[in-house]
Amino acid sequence: MASHSSTLFASPSSFNLLSSHRLNPSPKYFNLRFPRPVKTRHFDLRCSVSIEKEVPETERPFTFLRDSDGGGTQSSSSSSSSVRARFETMIRTAQDKVCEAIEAVEGGPKFKEDVWSRPGGGGGISRVLQDGNVWEKAGVNVSVVYGVMPPEAYRAAKGTATSDQKPGPVPFFAAGISSVLHPKNPFAPTLHFNYRYFETDAPKDVPGAPRQWWFGGGTDFTPAYIFEEDVKHFHSVQKQACDKFDPSFYPRFKKWCDDYFYIKHRNERRGLGGIFFDDLNDFDQEMLLSFATECASSVIPAYIPIIEKRKDTPFNDQHKAWQQLRRGRYVEFNLVYDRGTTFGLKTGGRIESILVSLPLSARWEYDHKPEEGTEEWKLLDACINPKEWL
Amino acid sequence: MASHSSTLFASPSSFNLLSSHRLNPSPKYFNLRFPRPVKTRHFDLRCSVSIEKEVPETERPFTFLRDSDGGGTQSSSSSSSSVRARFETMIRTAQDKVCEAIEAVEGGPKFKEDVWSRPGGGGGISRVLQDGNVWEKAGVNVSVVYGVMPPEAYRAAKGTATSDQKPGPVPFFAAGISSVLHPKNPFAPTLHFNYRYFETDAPKDVPGAPRQWWFGGGTDFTPAYIFEEDVKHFHSVQKQACDKFDPSFYPRFKKWCDDYFYIKHRNERRGLGGIFFDDLNDFDQEMLLSFATECASSVIPAYIPIIEKRKDTPFNDQHKAWQQLRRGRYVEFNLVYDRGTTFGLKTGGRIESILVSLPLSARWEYDHKPEEGTEEWKLLDACINPKEWL
Repeated sequence: MASHSSTLFASPSSFNLLSSHRLNPSPKYFNLRFPRPVKTRHFDLRCSVSIEKEVPETERPFTFLRDSDGGGTQSSSSSSSSVRARFETMIRTAQDKVCEAIEAVEGGPKFKEDVWSRPGGGGGISRVLQDGNVWEKAGVNVSVVYGVMPPEAYRAAKGTATSDQKPGPVPFFAAGISSVLHPKNPFAPTLHFNYRYFETDAPKDVPGAPRQWWFGGGTDFTPAYIFEEDVKHFHSVQKQACDKFDPSFYPRFKKWCDDYFYIKHRNERRGLGGIFFDDLNDFDQEMLLSFATECASSVIPAYIPIIEKRKDTPFNDQHKAWQQLRRGRYVEFNLVYDRGTTFGLKTGGRIESILVSLPLSARWEYDHKPEEGTEEWKLLDACINPKEWL
Repeated sequence: MASHSSTLFASPSSFNLLSSHRLNPSPKYFNLRFPRPVKTRHFDLRCSVSIEKEVPETERPFTFLRDSDGGGTQSSSSSSSSVRARFETMIRTAQDKVCEAIEAVEGGPKFKEDVWSRPGGGGGISRVLQDGNVWEKAGVNVSVVYGVMPPEAYRAAKGTATSDQKPGPVPFFAAGISSVLHPKNPFAPTLHFNYRYFETDAPKDVPGAPRQWWFGGGTDFTPAYIFEEDVKHFHSVQKQACDKFDPSFYPRFKKWCDDYFYIKHRNERRGLGGIFFDDLNDFDQEMLLSFATECASSVIPAYIPIIEKRKDTPFNDQHKAWQQLRRGRYVEFNLVYDRGTTFGLKTGGRIESILVSLPLSARWEYDHKPEEGTEEWKLLDACINPKEWL
């Protein structure tokens, strides 16, 4: 593993936590810019963060929160506790439930767990099931990060402070769950989901300046072959989750997903989409916490029935080779475009957690073009021309 | 393939031509910066280039040069002709010889050739042999590019013009050969080589301003297992080529190679190095043309004897899996760090030519750590701690 310096960017990359938040490393540390994000509503958060090196833990702690956030009490799951505490509870519950559902389908193979913490607060749980009966690689990670962002980022977000104000750095909190599930059977789709919450402290030296917060995340799926009933089922579960909160959510977040998971150099999407949103704070905070919870709870009903249906479908070498080529596209997206991954690689996060999103194996054939009208061509066509599935 | 706009950067990425020349896309087109180059001696060349879309050709033309560069005559191989013409002849000869040598080892399978040109001059020949008897993927590409760079880049290079001078854009010429050879047998090493020449016109509107030129390139190899005699043989052939020209070349270019092919997030080199140089113009131009020619000629004696020795070595699944993991590292380097690849992907080059450098297949296992003292561990150790092999 790469060595860590004691002063680093907060690298939430092990679960793509801040991935979509225009988190640019400080120019003095990294000569790097993210590609222009598909949606920019918030601010360009360039922050240099003092963050400690992670320490392996032998047991899962009850919470990764600092005591001041309710980490010292057993009450963090109560609805009266902070959003930080309730979000952590939500992602850890989601991790447990998704892992249980996967192990139930696997029928034997179990997740391997790595727990780590940082002395000053925060930490994470990485769970990986590799070379199972059904999945070649399944990773489900949660993480909590405490960091400090420079005042410019906070001011840019609010647009209120005048230039002669010189407030100090603003502490922030971030927590998230991130998962990529790559099945073995070429007719069973890959799934990715990721939900995260970000919150700053209220700056102490600027009276009246408020706490900032937002939610981000999404669930998208990537089959190698199209079964229209599967795609419709997956999207309809996403839509149901969205529709419980706002009728604009599904169409807006479906398009955002198609725009985000775009492999520009191929003019292809990585897969058949789902939902994706970021910087979401223009709704009631409690409503958005419920929405993120609903989305995370929808992963199992959206995905597991499809896996049950496709995991034992007979396939030949040609089907497997096509799946491997699409895995190659997955690698291209994640290493070239995904902001969480590219940010994590540049800033020295826990590499094995970041790259657990890569498939166990992938393939690149020179100038491969599926013949028009074939099942492979149909998938490629849907990646080039995103469709309305519902 | 991605669609091309008619106004693009000169994308020589199909053969990593300008890859190491700090070629940054114009900020107005791309919000992208290369990671800080390992060696920066020349200038930051930000250029917006009008370049036409490539056109497939049914036959190899005698030359890709414009008539004004001697492209209309049959004399471009004579020693009295321009460096442009002689460099093109050199790389096309090298392409032919390397492909012949590979086909001779393959004993049956042949390269597939794609030829393309641009109406205003320039073009390329991509040759790929996939799923052969010995190599899983062998790509050998040559290309010639005519483009235009903004005057700022030229002025920065010379450091002579005053700020009130407003010369126009400066035409440039670039030509190169690039090759990646991935064998099937896990005991047979992957080879990459790449030699390129870059030249500007003399600016017409600044009297006395000279033509700029430089050479770049290198040959490096990437085994999955160390046979010390192979590594010594490979490096000694590189050293012999260097020593014919300057005693400083081998130690300097060996270190440059170790520095360039560095996977920062892993703290590992991609492989066991070789030579790498860039922006080379502080020697006699004829001498450097001879040096690049000598390097390209050294590919076959440096590599083919190793392949002959290892191509039929018996191996098991564990050896193959380790090779596949190292192929994963190759993908990580090429997609995340290699300047030719990342530049090409951002600027719309011929994607299939750019990504022919990727292996046919690759593998990522979560948290794989070879046991200390094993052959796999020895390779990894040599990638983490570059050695002097001679």
